[in-house]
Amino acid sequence: MHYPEPISKLMDSFMKLPGIGPKTAGRLAFFVLSMEEEHVLDFAKALVNAKRNLSYCSVCGHITDQDPCSICQDDKRDQSIVCVVQDPKDVIAMEKMREYGGLYHVLHGSISPMDGIGPEDINIPDLLKRLKNDQIKEVILATNPNIEGEATAMYISRLLKPSGIRMTRIAHGLPVGGDLEYADEVTLSKALEGRRDL
Amino acid sequence: MHYPEPISKLMDSFMKLPGIGPKTAGRLAFFVLSMEEEHVLDFAKALVNAKRNLSYCSVCGHITDQDPCSICQDDKRDQSIVCVVQDPKDVIAMEKMREYGGLYHVLHGSISPMDGIGPEDINIPDLLKRLKNDQIKEVILATNPNIEGEATAMYISRLLKPSGIRMTRIAHGLPVGGDLEYADEVTLSKALEGRRDL
Repeated sequence: MHYPEPISKLMDSFMKLPGIGPKTAGRLAFFVLSMEEEHVLDFAKALVNAKRNLSYCSVCGHITDQDPCSICQDDKRDQSIVCVVQDPKDVIAMEKMREYGGLYHVLHGSISPMDGIGPEDINIPDLLKRLKNDQIKEVILATNPNIEGEATAMYISRLLKPSGIRMTRIAHGLPVGGDLEYADEVTLSKALEGRRDL
Repeated sequence: MHYPEPISKLMDSFMKLPGIGPKTAGRLAFFVLSMEEEHVLDFAKALVNAKRNLSYCSVCGHITDQDPCSICQDDKRDQSIVCVVQDPKDVIAMEKMREYGGLYHVLHGSISPMDGIGPEDINIPDLLKRLKNDQIKEVILATNPNIEGEATAMYISRLLKPSGIRMTRIAHGLPVGGDLEYADEVTLSKALEGRRDL
């Protein structure tokens, strides 16, 4: 309204981002004005580069700037295990752990009949094609521990049972550092159910 | 770390903004990937345009894409009143009110001896030059109601007293919609002190 046009346009762009309202957009836009021009140009370039140079790996569906992605290309990784996740961010969370050395398969969503998302709408057909490769001995289902994630894991495990490949599901239970007192009933029941011998 | 370079660069740029940490930066960067290319290009252009095409008005110091700014150029505004504020955002807050029809003067800061900011470091010399113009009959001191703002208002009012121009300070008191119970002592004392006949 009373902002010069360049700043109101920048605010409009910031407001398109999730969780950024008019107040924050104003604060960010004014901050940009106080930034060094070099950093602003880097920011603008980074935006365009990220949008233009990133795509999904044709093998695993992870986000990448080369095809196949660096994980699929890495010969040192265990080619016999595939971890199935819902989202590229899940791959990054797994990689941060630095303990998993296998491959990934990103579904880009989960089965959700309520939203009209069926098995064909997510990356399941590609997973089936990959599993025809005899190298793969185990599929770890690491979809989210919620209704849609569970349904997706269940669907995939039933679909693949005839193939004889080992299917596993990541464990449910109490998060480390959590408090028994504040755990919800379902988590607690899963933790009890999944108890292990010491 | 495990992000493809274009996305980690974009995250770095987002993290330079105030109040945006690694988690939010990741969320925003992934959101950018899901945006339409057209909107991303608009965003990048808006960043560069805002930085390159905006400057400070040579008359009032408000942020503008033309010099003098649209407020200083507007003949319909009352040329006899100048409202002194600390920041371009304060001009916008005043303009949103739609009740003030005078001019502005933006100081770009406040006197703060603790931070080594004296009267010469903010836009006060320009204000003195402007006030040599006989047209100006009143100066409204609308600096922030805190120690630095008060000190700045006091300094300017003493400096200009000999000129005979009417000097006013915006009222201190309880904010509308506020609660007497929760008001701090200083605000309450100012509200009492500034009481008016009904």
